Amino acid sequence: MTDNDPNASIAAAQAVLDAVPFHDQVLRPRVVAVDPRAGSLDVALDPNPALRRSREDGALHGGVVASLIDLAAYNAVALHKSAATPTLDLRIDYLRPAVAPLVARARMVRAGRRTATVDVTVVDAAGVTVALGRGSFMILEG
Amino acid sequence: MTDNDPNASIAAAQAVLDAVPFHDQVLRPRVVAVDPRAGSLDVALDPNPALRRSREDGALHGGVVASLIDLAAYNAVALHKSAATPTLDLRIDYLRPAVAPLVARARMVRAGRRTATVDVTVVDAAGVTVALGRGSFMILEG
Amino acid sequence: MTDNDPNASIAAAQAVLDAVPFHDQVLRPRVVAVDPRAGSLDVALDPNPALRRSREDGALHGGVVASLIDLAAYNAVALHKSAATPTLDLRIDYLRPAVAPLVARARMVRAGRRTATVDVTVVDAAGVTVALGRGSFMILEG
Amino acid sequence: MTDNDPNASIAAAQAVLDAVPFHDQVLRPRVVAVDPRAGSLDVALDPNPALRRSREDGALHGGVVASLIDLAAYNAVALHKSAATPTLDLRIDYLRPAVAPLVARARMVRAGRRTATVDVTVVDAAGVTVALGRGSFMILEG
Repeated sequence: MTDNDPNASIAAAQAVLDAVPFHDQVLRPRVVAVDPRAGSLDVALDPNPALRRSREDGALHGGVVASLIDLAAYNAVALHKSAATPTLDLRIDYLRPAVAPLVARARMVRAGRRTATVDVTVVDAAGVTVALGRGSFMILEG
Repeated sequence: MTDNDPNASIAAAQAVLDAVPFHDQVLRPRVVAVDPRAGSLDVALDPNPALRRSREDGALHGGVVASLIDLAAYNAVALHKSAATPTLDLRIDYLRPAVAPLVARARMVRAGRRTATVDVTVVDAAGVTVALGRGSFMILEG
Repeated sequence: MTDNDPNASIAAAQAVLDAVPFHDQVLRPRVVAVDPRAGSLDVALDPNPALRRSREDGALHGGVVASLIDLAAYNAVALHKSAATPTLDLRIDYLRPAVAPLVARARMVRAGRRTATVDVTVVDAAGVTVALGRGSFMILEG
Repeated sequence: MTDNDPNASIAAAQAVLDAVPFHDQVLRPRVVAVDPRAGSLDVALDPNPALRRSREDGALHGGVVASLIDLAAYNAVALHKSAATPTLDLRIDYLRPAVAPLVARARMVRAGRRTATVDVTVVDAAGVTVALGRGSFMILEG
């Protein structure tokens, strides 16, 4: 097993996510792909009735979609920089009702010494994009 | 008891919030003030260890702050318009670590026929602003 | 010459842009590609010393980059909908100093009856992405 | 005349703005109030037909409003920090058609070592808010 073993990287990233109470006790996000060198991270969210916006349909609460975008983007930068990278600002565009399972695909588009910018696309099981995210992150020395 | 009774308005707004599974089962937001005519709504979030970003400190997850902003802003418009008002886009600026209890103060800054714009300020128990939100909302005919 | 003649479409889009005083008298944007059906529009901005942010380097003012993003996104929707589509909100991420000539590539990512969402990528002559834009637009009946 | 003389501060801030080609040759912004210690700056924009969005009415182009917001916010931070403070990201909400003369009021809401957050309100001659801006700025050592 080497540094480049994809399963080892996924397990390491999953452990980082699971150390967060809101992930471990509420959202239960699952790392499905990660490339720390490139600053990319794909995170899945499984169906959970407690995360819905209404009792009448299966769509997730907008805050859940925002949370998924935030955690995918934050960790894409944090794993790349091996540092804490607090979210400075985050923007979400809601395109369609978001029914789990979802995958959030975070891609770093710029990484400087002080800040990074990350794009996130959230797709549903049919591959349809249901939300877009973009955020600025501070980079704190490790 | 009249339409203008503040306690009646608070109870009505609370019932709207409690009908949402993610509120009722996870966040447990509490309406503390509401003025549907003005499009203003204040919502409190009480401490809950499951909503934290880390086991080491008491600060909330960024997604929880985003959720609080989204639900306060959405309902400020929805109560004003008596309509569904899906979030079109939402932006959050994280100013400081957010330790509950928090209050999110949502204020409609523009309401047209098709869309509305809402500002949200999130303050902690010391009155310090920990996050700012702003969003655009669609207005669907009731 | 048919409706699908690309040069005719470019000339028609250019005429729409040229009718705007701020375009005609200041920015001088040039349509380089347009697909009204898809909601895509590429607009070039040529070097002009009056648009710089400083006398010391050739980079454009951030407001000029924002203007280019706004006009490309607005017209991508307006040409698709054959309607006025006022900008509701606009967000710009500045990735690198922006030296003209630039091309802004606007792509509609969602178009509903009331609102549309557009993504814009701004690239320089070397093909490097210097800024990203995203905006929400209202759609007014024609 | 001391450091705290308001007219001296206004003249100094105006000189900073006038050194920018896009200001000096196109926008012609006028500093009307400045408090570098607080990180606040008010900038006026006078009527100019070349900055309009249409030949039919007097409203300014959305890019001009974005430019005014960017320059007011940028310089509120730059004067406070005595440093270059490149715009990281900027968000504009267009509330109403913007007819000059306008005043953009920039207020720093957070200033850290690495980044700052600024709010801008744009009001017209009647005191009506026509646009809102918010941005994140990097702080480069002077």
